[in-house]
Amino acid sequence: MAMIKGTRIALLGLGLISGSLAKALKATSWRGSIVAWGPREPSLKRGLSLGVIDEYTLDLEAALDGADIVVVGAPPAATASVLNAVFVALRKNGQTPVVTDLASIKGHIVAQAPTDYPGFVPGHPIAGSEHSGVSAARSELFAGREVILTPLATTDESATSEVANLWRMTGARVTEMAVDAHDAALAASSHSPHMIAYALTMALSKDGLAPIEHGGGALRDMTRIAASDPVMWRDVALTNRDALLAAMAAVDGELNQLRELISTGSGEELERYFAHCREVRRGYDRILNPMLEPREPAS
Amino acid sequence: MAMIKGTRIALLGLGLISGSLAKALKATSWRGSIVAWGPREPSLKRGLSLGVIDEYTLDLEAALDGADIVVVGAPPAATASVLNAVFVALRKNGQTPVVTDLASIKGHIVAQAPTDYPGFVPGHPIAGSEHSGVSAARSELFAGREVILTPLATTDESATSEVANLWRMTGARVTEMAVDAHDAALAASSHSPHMIAYALTMALSKDGLAPIEHGGGALRDMTRIAASDPVMWRDVALTNRDALLAAMAAVDGELNQLRELISTGSGEELERYFAHCREVRRGYDRILNPMLEPREPAS
Repeated sequence: MAMIKGTRIALLGLGLISGSLAKALKATSWRGSIVAWGPREPSLKRGLSLGVIDEYTLDLEAALDGADIVVVGAPPAATASVLNAVFVALRKNGQTPVVTDLASIKGHIVAQAPTDYPGFVPGHPIAGSEHSGVSAARSELFAGREVILTPLATTDESATSEVANLWRMTGARVTEMAVDAHDAALAASSHSPHMIAYALTMALSKDGLAPIEHGGGALRDMTRIAASDPVMWRDVALTNRDALLAAMAAVDGELNQLRELISTGSGEELERYFAHCREVRRGYDRILNPMLEPREPAS
Repeated sequence: MAMIKGTRIALLGLGLISGSLAKALKATSWRGSIVAWGPREPSLKRGLSLGVIDEYTLDLEAALDGADIVVVGAPPAATASVLNAVFVALRKNGQTPVVTDLASIKGHIVAQAPTDYPGFVPGHPIAGSEHSGVSAARSELFAGREVILTPLATTDESATSEVANLWRMTGARVTEMAVDAHDAALAASSHSPHMIAYALTMALSKDGLAPIEHGGGALRDMTRIAASDPVMWRDVALTNRDALLAAMAAVDGELNQLRELISTGSGEELERYFAHCREVRRGYDRILNPMLEPREPAS
């Protein structure tokens, strides 16, 4: 099994993702300590009482002291500011832990990172929930899910390898991508779908027939992520603006194409369109539903 | 508990929904018999061997003979034809069972129904799955879900009551709506969300970065129903065209509004928009996730 070298991890910001990381690590044979720092003491206290972390502090420098791995977990805009504060503090006290983050956009983060800190490994676990906060943390959140690392030209391979092992310990599969490719792919696979869920939910909420009251499983799934954290998604929308607008335009183009086919009563084309989508969706079911993947029979 | 008077049920078309209805009835104390008719013998044979039905026939008149309740389960366009054949056969043999259907659109069906058959109760269970066929049938598919009946001016109250009891036996809650209101509300709550899932899936499948490979739970949910039955959704799109186009235009309007807010960097408005959606979505969670509804503590 993958195992990190570090024995002390500092979580800067304690929420759903960082809390789930802590719980996942505690479910392995790793026996290090986890300290959390954050702006809101109640969250930290809750994390301590839930056994998610071993200790907490409201003093950033104290949290960094002696840490081997620093994980910044905050909304995208705040992630950049916290990272800057971290690099300033590390330069001051001369420590060089591995530093990674959890933000769903990477370009905006990397643009503000120092170019002379080889221990920085930008990261993004593709996992989440419409629930937020450390109380919603689950040790199995990352099982089978992808974690994308976007190491920079200045990043040490040993740092990348340590962060990759950190995630492998949670059951995730680790891949590497360039920053721009990450932001464009995620705009299409995650950011634009969130905007679509928001748009659908808003349209339904304005409809005088109260259609949501007649919703079934389809609507449950198509609106679930509209309950996601508004601050995080505001940040994502603004910090990955161009890629997001391009991805939304692509979906809008398809929606308009469908409206045209419906409007003109083009049954054969519609059936072909839908059949193609079914094939595409089925082809990706093992990636999108990793927990349902059938196990290989023991031979 | 609700209980139907009928002791023999004919299912015309055996698939996910009619098969789940049969399984749900067999899980109650009702001890009648269920005969299935359909165009494809393999499905009927599978239903028989799975114990979903008691017998089957390829002869429509034989299926109707002695039936107390006739349930037409077919794609929307085929539902109208089967209903017509049923009414012709019933007139010929002088039987007057209660007749209902399962189609997700009602206007198109009702427009073709005879105005002199008081036993006809148009119906629509708001439940389904991206899987189709009798093998995917589940007895608990309707638990907590809504079944909408749209009785006509000519419909006997006793027929409506029998069909309502049929559905209540499956654990569903039964509501009544006018045909037009049903089609408009469902266009918004179900039909348009399916079109959105198709459009999103198609846009992703054309993207050179293969973004679906980086999908997580959000994309799993936002594309799940794009694997739905192409023929059924072709029929829904064409037979509920005007209401569907209006619902899609409303979502498109919201998407354009979001693109504008993102484009102009309107952070406060975006956060307010997302926060409103979260509130709306949370407010409907008990309807959209009926299985998760906490039980009242015994007093």
